[in-house]
Amino acid sequence: MSDYKIQLSERDSPSHWYNIAADLDKPFAAVLGGDGQPATADSLSAIFPDTLIEQEMATERWIEIPEPVRQIYQQWRPTPLHRAHRLEQLLETPAKTYYKNEGCSAAGSHKPNSAVPQAYYNKLAGRTRLTTETGAGQWGSSIAWAGQMFSLEVMIYMVNISYQQKPFRRSMMQTWGGQVVASPSELTAAGRDQLAKDPNTSGSLGIAISEAVEDAASRADSSYTLGSVLNHVLLHQTIIGQEAIKQFEIAGDYPDVIFAPCGGGSNFAGVAFPFLADKAAGKQVELIAVEPSSCPSLTRGHFAYDFGDTAGLTPMMLMYTLGHDFIPPGIHAGGLRYHGTAPQLAQLVERGLISAIAVDQIPTFEAGVLFAKAEGIIPAPESNHAIRAAIDEALRCKESGEQKTIFFNLSGHGHFDMLSYDRYFAGELENFDYPQAAIDEALAGLPQT
Amino acid sequence: MSDYKIQLSERDSPSHWYNIAADLDKPFAAVLGGDGQPATADSLSAIFPDTLIEQEMATERWIEIPEPVRQIYQQWRPTPLHRAHRLEQLLETPAKTYYKNEGCSAAGSHKPNSAVPQAYYNKLAGRTRLTTETGAGQWGSSIAWAGQMFSLEVMIYMVNISYQQKPFRRSMMQTWGGQVVASPSELTAAGRDQLAKDPNTSGSLGIAISEAVEDAASRADSSYTLGSVLNHVLLHQTIIGQEAIKQFEIAGDYPDVIFAPCGGGSNFAGVAFPFLADKAAGKQVELIAVEPSSCPSLTRGHFAYDFGDTAGLTPMMLMYTLGHDFIPPGIHAGGLRYHGTAPQLAQLVERGLISAIAVDQIPTFEAGVLFAKAEGIIPAPESNHAIRAAIDEALRCKESGEQKTIFFNLSGHGHFDMLSYDRYFAGELENFDYPQAAIDEALAGLPQT
Repeated sequence: MSDYKIQLSERDSPSHWYNIAADLDKPFAAVLGGDGQPATADSLSAIFPDTLIEQEMATERWIEIPEPVRQIYQQWRPTPLHRAHRLEQLLETPAKTYYKNEGCSAAGSHKPNSAVPQAYYNKLAGRTRLTTETGAGQWGSSIAWAGQMFSLEVMIYMVNISYQQKPFRRSMMQTWGGQVVASPSELTAAGRDQLAKDPNTSGSLGIAISEAVEDAASRADSSYTLGSVLNHVLLHQTIIGQEAIKQFEIAGDYPDVIFAPCGGGSNFAGVAFPFLADKAAGKQVELIAVEPSSCPSLTRGHFAYDFGDTAGLTPMMLMYTLGHDFIPPGIHAGGLRYHGTAPQLAQLVERGLISAIAVDQIPTFEAGVLFAKAEGIIPAPESNHAIRAAIDEALRCKESGEQKTIFFNLSGHGHFDMLSYDRYFAGELENFDYPQAAIDEALAGLPQT
Repeated sequence: MSDYKIQLSERDSPSHWYNIAADLDKPFAAVLGGDGQPATADSLSAIFPDTLIEQEMATERWIEIPEPVRQIYQQWRPTPLHRAHRLEQLLETPAKTYYKNEGCSAAGSHKPNSAVPQAYYNKLAGRTRLTTETGAGQWGSSIAWAGQMFSLEVMIYMVNISYQQKPFRRSMMQTWGGQVVASPSELTAAGRDQLAKDPNTSGSLGIAISEAVEDAASRADSSYTLGSVLNHVLLHQTIIGQEAIKQFEIAGDYPDVIFAPCGGGSNFAGVAFPFLADKAAGKQVELIAVEPSSCPSLTRGHFAYDFGDTAGLTPMMLMYTLGHDFIPPGIHAGGLRYHGTAPQLAQLVERGLISAIAVDQIPTFEAGVLFAKAEGIIPAPESNHAIRAAIDEALRCKESGEQKTIFFNLSGHGHFDMLSYDRYFAGELENFDYPQAAIDEALAGLPQT
């Protein structure tokens, strides 16, 4: 048979997560507490169990995946690596294109890679309830499912625009026993504050994080869980890149360039960090984060200390940011509507090890439809960002005649995003762009580094 | 690691479809043309290409799967066999439960197993356009996708109630380039006739078949394609059961009882027929088709010659039927709303080799939610029928202490059925049942055997 799908066997599945903090010339910048001093483990223990705080601050290279987590991973992992032969034919490109299908999980994206261990460690620590925020609902679904598996209650603050656009994501979370509320909500001070400013706000991940953090901090039985940004989340996602490296070995190939969509950064980091270790060891590979031009933190934001949430309840992190009160327009890639980026990722971009590009909304849907026609799978709007970038690269190869190997992460399927596709077909979607001055103004109050 | 998932390697993937017609003591009854005589290949050639007619009438045991079809199968096949450990724990049953996940395909069900070869053989025969009907949209999606892969136009008559209940299935078909119309439609004489009788009809698979057959027969460029009932469709689906047999070998286990949902019968036959060959060779295995009590063809219909469609455009087939003008109530398992059953399957039921049971709508959703909580995957309403039966069997084992091995087919996921789940949670679903007299009356006009 051919190389249409490169499947990894169960026994070749990674046994450890890869921690990039072990492999740096210069350590990552400290996270700062309310007093401007590096945040301590103690200061985080109100909202996280100790094991996850340890992982957040860990410096060892490999962290073992607990057996109960591996058992659950086994339901959908290792995920297949596909060679997109039909896409190549359609594009008439000499490039070779590969994608990893993270949409195989029950929740439909890469998010359970971290939801499962987060639920597991919280269960071990005796917590009985988790709180979280969700944008497109990919993370909320994942944590609702993971909580269910460990008999934990789950409370989800869902960004209002997504709550309206994706009602069936909500049904999905409810099927798994999750409790879902539109954010901003009346349940928290942070939510009430936003509603007072604008009762019709579309909401944002930053606001929803404030609500979920406030909720968790106010109850001893609860932990806060986050689907991106934090070191331990990125750590859990490295299983993707590790699998991909083994699959490329089987295929007898290696990527020249890797694209993944980037909002908070967990999906991108999960793919890229293991390849970055390869790069440090001498391999040639270009790593490119693809973000929406409507929320261009890496490409147009400032590199500065900022809060992870809108209300300023989190520690301050050194990252690329559009300002913690930036509310992105209501694009359909709800999972990418975040004002900042994972500090680890941002700092690697600043050091020149990773690059970033931004793409407009309409061309991402155009790319998604083309991909669906070629490869069958209908992608999530977030994934369409990586597909757009990969197709553009393949088309450049067509011009130049280069036979590059292009790899992108298909972070999730679009089964709960068909309304967005309907709007695309009806010509109702918009592109968004900002004058740099508006972004600079939003950032004026932030300390620079 | 454990046996949570039994994955078959690419190279162990079946190379041939299994044709049960080769293994019978007594041949299947002939299909009858309009003149009451056995239908000839010629009489079918207006709507099918020769290769598929040959497969329809084939008596050899193994039919090779063409290489281009195997390449496409490879995108999602072999599908995993899962041991449902968490479901067993939840039920506290000593039974072992396994399910095969056919929801992995891009279209979300087992239907592409036949859509891909049907599109392939039509392309070879020079047809440029396919027509079909669809209930829940599982088949329509599959043929839209398969048509796209072979550059064929696809025209889909979608049963009106499903067209209303599942708008995003429609978007999915359109994303793959399919043209979709609610059935009955104004486009065909059969459709106009039904609309004249009842402009607000919920439609049925029988009516939609009439429309798709009429459309194909009226155009030289077009073939009709069907997602179930016909011998060649059942043949293509046998890849499921063949894979499962190999996977049970790997697991070192073998099912005592097998359940699959049954509407037209392709999903059930696909799982059951290869096991039936095992049974003929001496293995002990019970094969049980699970149908909705609102459309109980196998359990309460008559064994008689009847048309496959409402308007009487198809040949007459010997099957269990509720009468070709029976319009089932608008249950959410749209794929099971068919008045008859595949003749091969019906005749094996009549010979006592296969049995059948019927289950009510509400308990199927209850089973589906329980399964989703245990195993993560949210099942299609059709699949919930098999899950209900499997759970009932597991609960009987709990009572009796028996350690049976139960196997069921998870024919598809429910990502496009969340509205149905919402209605279930809101207490808005109904059970349906019919007095036998009403069924007998509907059947009074049919010839008996």
